[in-house]
Amino acid sequence: MILSEFQTVRGMRDFLPKEAARMRHVEQTARELAQLYLYEEIITPVVESYELLAAKAGEEMRHRMYAFKDLGGRMVALRPEFTPSIARLVATKLKTQPKPMRLFCAGSLYRYDEPQYGRYREFWQSNYELIGSSRPEADAEILTLTNDFIQRLGLRNYWFKIGHMGILRGVFRQEGVSEEQQNTIMQLLDKKQWKEALQVIQTTGVSAQCVKALKEVFEIKGREAFEVLGRVEHSVRDYDGAVAAVENLREIIEMTRKGGAEFEISIESGFARGLEYYTGIIFEPYVPEMDIALGGGGRYDKLIELFGGDPTPAVGVAHGMDRLALATKKQKAHPRVSLERRVLVVPIGEALRAIAVELSLRLRKAGIPVEVEVMGRTVSRALQDADRRGVTHAVILGPEELKAEEVVLRDMKGRRQKVVKIDDLLKAIVADLE
Amino acid sequence: MILSEFQTVRGMRDFLPKEAARMRHVEQTARELAQLYLYEEIITPVVESYELLAAKAGEEMRHRMYAFKDLGGRMVALRPEFTPSIARLVATKLKTQPKPMRLFCAGSLYRYDEPQYGRYREFWQSNYELIGSSRPEADAEILTLTNDFIQRLGLRNYWFKIGHMGILRGVFRQEGVSEEQQNTIMQLLDKKQWKEALQVIQTTGVSAQCVKALKEVFEIKGREAFEVLGRVEHSVRDYDGAVAAVENLREIIEMTRKGGAEFEISIESGFARGLEYYTGIIFEPYVPEMDIALGGGGRYDKLIELFGGDPTPAVGVAHGMDRLALATKKQKAHPRVSLERRVLVVPIGEALRAIAVELSLRLRKAGIPVEVEVMGRTVSRALQDADRRGVTHAVILGPEELKAEEVVLRDMKGRRQKVVKIDDLLKAIVADLE
Repeated sequence: MILSEFQTVRGMRDFLPKEAARMRHVEQTARELAQLYLYEEIITPVVESYELLAAKAGEEMRHRMYAFKDLGGRMVALRPEFTPSIARLVATKLKTQPKPMRLFCAGSLYRYDEPQYGRYREFWQSNYELIGSSRPEADAEILTLTNDFIQRLGLRNYWFKIGHMGILRGVFRQEGVSEEQQNTIMQLLDKKQWKEALQVIQTTGVSAQCVKALKEVFEIKGREAFEVLGRVEHSVRDYDGAVAAVENLREIIEMTRKGGAEFEISIESGFARGLEYYTGIIFEPYVPEMDIALGGGGRYDKLIELFGGDPTPAVGVAHGMDRLALATKKQKAHPRVSLERRVLVVPIGEALRAIAVELSLRLRKAGIPVEVEVMGRTVSRALQDADRRGVTHAVILGPEELKAEEVVLRDMKGRRQKVVKIDDLLKAIVADLE
Repeated sequence: MILSEFQTVRGMRDFLPKEAARMRHVEQTARELAQLYLYEEIITPVVESYELLAAKAGEEMRHRMYAFKDLGGRMVALRPEFTPSIARLVATKLKTQPKPMRLFCAGSLYRYDEPQYGRYREFWQSNYELIGSSRPEADAEILTLTNDFIQRLGLRNYWFKIGHMGILRGVFRQEGVSEEQQNTIMQLLDKKQWKEALQVIQTTGVSAQCVKALKEVFEIKGREAFEVLGRVEHSVRDYDGAVAAVENLREIIEMTRKGGAEFEISIESGFARGLEYYTGIIFEPYVPEMDIALGGGGRYDKLIELFGGDPTPAVGVAHGMDRLALATKKQKAHPRVSLERRVLVVPIGEALRAIAVELSLRLRKAGIPVEVEVMGRTVSRALQDADRRGVTHAVILGPEELKAEEVVLRDMKGRRQKVVKIDDLLKAIVADLE
């Protein structure tokens, strides 16, 4: 088999320079955000024990893991999400850390999903966890941070889909539906199988009043957050837990709005994230150009406990970095100013090659991107190629000029050139751009 | 099984905040270097086809790969190095790109090695490839770039081990030793099994003069580059190819030295990198505190051809980012200035929580790291905790002060506080640090 026949494995992909720059910009913005909000970064391995990753993953996720035996016979898998690794750290190496604990991580994840638009088998997330606070200001922080991230990336048109696990769970709890049945229902709802969910609900023996309330709630949806919340509250008015959940959501949204964040909210009270450990607010950001969520977050006070740790309230969010990169492309949000300067240093003749290396090092020390001619071409051939590569300035080293400590500086766009002292070169390159 | 019993898989590791910051600093420096030297970043998947990764990997590497069948029955593996993926791209999606092509990539790699100090089964590399030039200035650029990287990381005491594949290959070629036999010998040398290598050499039927020359060469080693090269040249004087290799090495080193790079060179002419595709200079940087190379690079003009592409000269280097991070720790090279500012915003009373969120957003917009009190604690409890967390400034929001658009700013180190206008807060925080 020859190389040109090799391809990426199905569902995996390459990022060529433009797309890679976009991805790294998203990652860098995520990291700056973590620094500004004081979330400390941790790095966990891609390969974890299967047992850890499968423990709370839910049936579906388990079947989509890249799992295999390593050479030592251990059953391992590629992480499909960050949460188990973080829970592992919080319950072990970070166990004695005082709360609140703010953690950040960013990296690649792996799921054997059917590849589709924006969904690959290797994907990237930036993940923020605020551990130890059960208060609405913690939820508001995670929501605000996500909004801040999206704005920093330059996305203009986006909204949050927001729900609260406590609304349905509050109803079910009061009706005596078991946790297990609740989980089954939530998973159906997550897949938008409302009909099937209603069928399961009816087999659990809930009251007719309950079915009526749920049917109403499943249909409520809208962008006027407080008006929508009022309707939901009315439908579930007989269920104290559900009413408290609506109140909690109202408080979080109010706090985030007053906090200066602006976003459209789409309350879908039938909206349920499939993972079993969510307990409070849940949310997903969207852009109109894409059919998939750009991330997902929420409160999961039971997670650490589920993993056998001490009960610990927690709220967090995972942003799909590659999806965000795609969204910035779709919305033509150009985060990167095009490279301002790109200098090519061309020595005339073999003897000057080392001086070209030296000069290029000096320019780079001053922060200027520089390449040296390494093909041994003539000046005119090198300059032709430089044009094509988007070089802004060529520095030509000739033996005569060098004797006077001078070089030729060519402005590639203006097609002008002048002789400058080497010591003035830096100033000349910068001035030329102003 | 409870969570606290879960561990990382053998050979894998977590980076807690301090170590993670160190790693990310190394990665960020690597990326800045790529931008300054105009190497374009690409991102390739961790999971590649086994066939691609195994094609030119050498027996040993093949046995150390994390290989498995995915759910679709494809034989895949976690990349143990970047080279096959880059060769794949160069032969396919980047085929029509004009030369020289400068490519950069950075990420995690996987090898089932026996874990030992500084060597893990998941490790990180930054990788630079200069494709299309066979000239010594290209080799000099890769060496200079590596030196620049190490200096930017603040490492003070380090040296390069340098060799040239053409020295031994030049001798063998003239003696008629087959490529296959040469590769076997090179692999033994890479493991420092000089005796075993000599035994194999003697079975190939080379001349007595050849054995004598090789025995001499294997023992030459020293830090005075040009003096050492003179001795090597003398030992192999009867082999034209070997002499040309010494000359090439001399030229590269000269160019790099004149180019302003300073480093100690340790020429070991018996030094051979095991991978089959190296053809010219080979090098590895070291620090005295660690027994393992911090990276490895060299010229591999045959690589693309080996993979079935057009013959393409190329030179490149891979830096072990986690090893470099460890080296900066060992040499106490503190790249990061400790966080200058860390602000805590504490609202007094529930009603002011949203204002705390708003204020913190304004501070972050100005680039100041801020956390908001999310535990609902009293001011004195929150301040106690702030001390422990290294908070430099606390901003206390009280209802009375807010009426006058003022807040209390507390300098945590000086243990002083004063009332400031909200509009002057930013200035006051910055001024306090000067």
